[in-house]
Amino acid sequence: MGIVISFEEEQTKAETALAHLQALVADDMVKVNQTIILKMQSSVPLIPQLAGHLIASGGKRLRPMLTLATSRMCGYKGDRHAELAACVEFIHSATLLHDDVVDESDMRRGLETANELWGNKASVLVGDFLFSRSFELMVADGSLEVLAILSNASSVIAEGEVLQLTTANNMDTTEDSYMQVIVAKTAALFAASCEIGAVIAEKPDAEQQALKSYGKNLGVVFQLIDDVLDFSAEQEKLGKSVGDDFREGKVTLPIVLAFRRGDDEERKFWRRTIEDLNQNDDDLETAIKLMRKYKALHDTVERARHYGAIAKDALAIFPNDEYRKALTGIVDFCVNRAY
Amino acid sequence: MGIVISFEEEQTKAETALAHLQALVADDMVKVNQTIILKMQSSVPLIPQLAGHLIASGGKRLRPMLTLATSRMCGYKGDRHAELAACVEFIHSATLLHDDVVDESDMRRGLETANELWGNKASVLVGDFLFSRSFELMVADGSLEVLAILSNASSVIAEGEVLQLTTANNMDTTEDSYMQVIVAKTAALFAASCEIGAVIAEKPDAEQQALKSYGKNLGVVFQLIDDVLDFSAEQEKLGKSVGDDFREGKVTLPIVLAFRRGDDEERKFWRRTIEDLNQNDDDLETAIKLMRKYKALHDTVERARHYGAIAKDALAIFPNDEYRKALTGIVDFCVNRAY
Repeated sequence: MGIVISFEEEQTKAETALAHLQALVADDMVKVNQTIILKMQSSVPLIPQLAGHLIASGGKRLRPMLTLATSRMCGYKGDRHAELAACVEFIHSATLLHDDVVDESDMRRGLETANELWGNKASVLVGDFLFSRSFELMVADGSLEVLAILSNASSVIAEGEVLQLTTANNMDTTEDSYMQVIVAKTAALFAASCEIGAVIAEKPDAEQQALKSYGKNLGVVFQLIDDVLDFSAEQEKLGKSVGDDFREGKVTLPIVLAFRRGDDEERKFWRRTIEDLNQNDDDLETAIKLMRKYKALHDTVERARHYGAIAKDALAIFPNDEYRKALTGIVDFCVNRAY
Repeated sequence: MGIVISFEEEQTKAETALAHLQALVADDMVKVNQTIILKMQSSVPLIPQLAGHLIASGGKRLRPMLTLATSRMCGYKGDRHAELAACVEFIHSATLLHDDVVDESDMRRGLETANELWGNKASVLVGDFLFSRSFELMVADGSLEVLAILSNASSVIAEGEVLQLTTANNMDTTEDSYMQVIVAKTAALFAASCEIGAVIAEKPDAEQQALKSYGKNLGVVFQLIDDVLDFSAEQEKLGKSVGDDFREGKVTLPIVLAFRRGDDEERKFWRRTIEDLNQNDDDLETAIKLMRKYKALHDTVERARHYGAIAKDALAIFPNDEYRKALTGIVDFCVNRAY
């Protein structure tokens, strides 16, 4: 209390929290990566080429880490968790390929996107392949309960993506509609990644629901900060173009807040740039200025802290071991991350 | 012997065979259609709108009919077959939505395509939704054996679609490579649709393999004739534009045969139109003329008859009841269909 922690210190703490979780699951992650490489093989050379470009390009592997860490925290001793973690990463990768087609993105993780390099057609079809492979991996695992959780998550993700399409370019989008989109398109997979940790460890429903809630709220934090970073990140750290959401007319929370808090003239600006997609070179700068004026980015981070607090409390029923500490730390990482 | 059956007579017989199968499974098909309507619902209105446009637009429902008829031929008395048949139709519909994006098609079943009406983005994402829903339906059925067959088929289909992308615009494509594409992208789902009929009826491996073989070869027939119709159909009956494959530079068997049988000048024509996609208004007419000259369409139908014969023989181990007769008849339908 009374001590002001600087943004830089927060970021250093965030990095440490990520490193802590990475270290705890490092051995298991080797198996996950082996499974990923093995299962993206195909006699059709374009498939491992394109999938490898995305998957080997080094995302944070946050979702598979969650499956590994939650199952270990629940006392799971077997090795099904590594295959299921790979399966979660496959679902995520398939979604990314289709997202980049839908968003017409040209950069991801500091590299040109697959659709930019191989075309939209290949990205759609290789996405379908990865998605099908993820189901083969689940079926091989053999648990109908896990299958139900992950197949339901996949449906919810797709629903969320379609819903996002219908809220795009619409400045009347409320914070509630925005939340509905991100809970479906992002948080559902985080929730499922964590919930299956409890399921394979055969923990009772209370633990299963706790991990589902942790994952869901963590996923919301992750997406809120993603939407903040689109306006505030340093481009090299982000690995994609700053302002992409703005240029596409995606209505994220910082925009919802800046619009609602603005005056008539400012709202006209948002309608012109986001609804009509009629944008000039200096409009992104103006958008960021308006967000500063109304603390829209700051308050989006505050909202993220709120969901982060729920995520941490959801973990409280578990013993306070290294895994729980790491999973708690990853909430702070997601709030304070710079990329 | 000695009796020449006209093309018109063949087509009438084909229609009768289709009607026979449709009549046999009519009651079950009511349940399939109910499941389809129910499971394409979503709180996101665009999903049932777009999916409904495609699904309710009245395809032949050939694949779900196969699941219904094969399971009944195997003596199955329950009602799991209707939900699984709906699931097969969902996989097929998801594939169609993504196909139309990849092919940039504007017409299907006599209607504008979903990508033409709602845009590519919506088609990609609603395709993902239908695909996820199909997995939810399978998981609800609860048979890991069925799940393994259908999830494997989905992977193989996606692989086939990617392979097709890499053979497009390539006149060096052999008949073997072409066959590899269509076995994967089309025949795999026909095979799975039939195989699960034996699985849910708990028939031994011999019956299961027989139905898989029947379905696979029927699927090959279906695709070969599809590729013929793209050059020979009456446009209103076909419900899509004649010459689509040609305009996209898709290397189908009629083109493979015409190219290989042609002289140097004619091969130059194929390389210019298919590889360079440098096409004039009268090139489609020239292409069809060259196909006639070398009997390329006629011989593609002959190839289809060959695979059709294999499909019929695969059924020979089953008692010759109404279902077997209808499934045999459907081979003739697929060879002789005009749409």
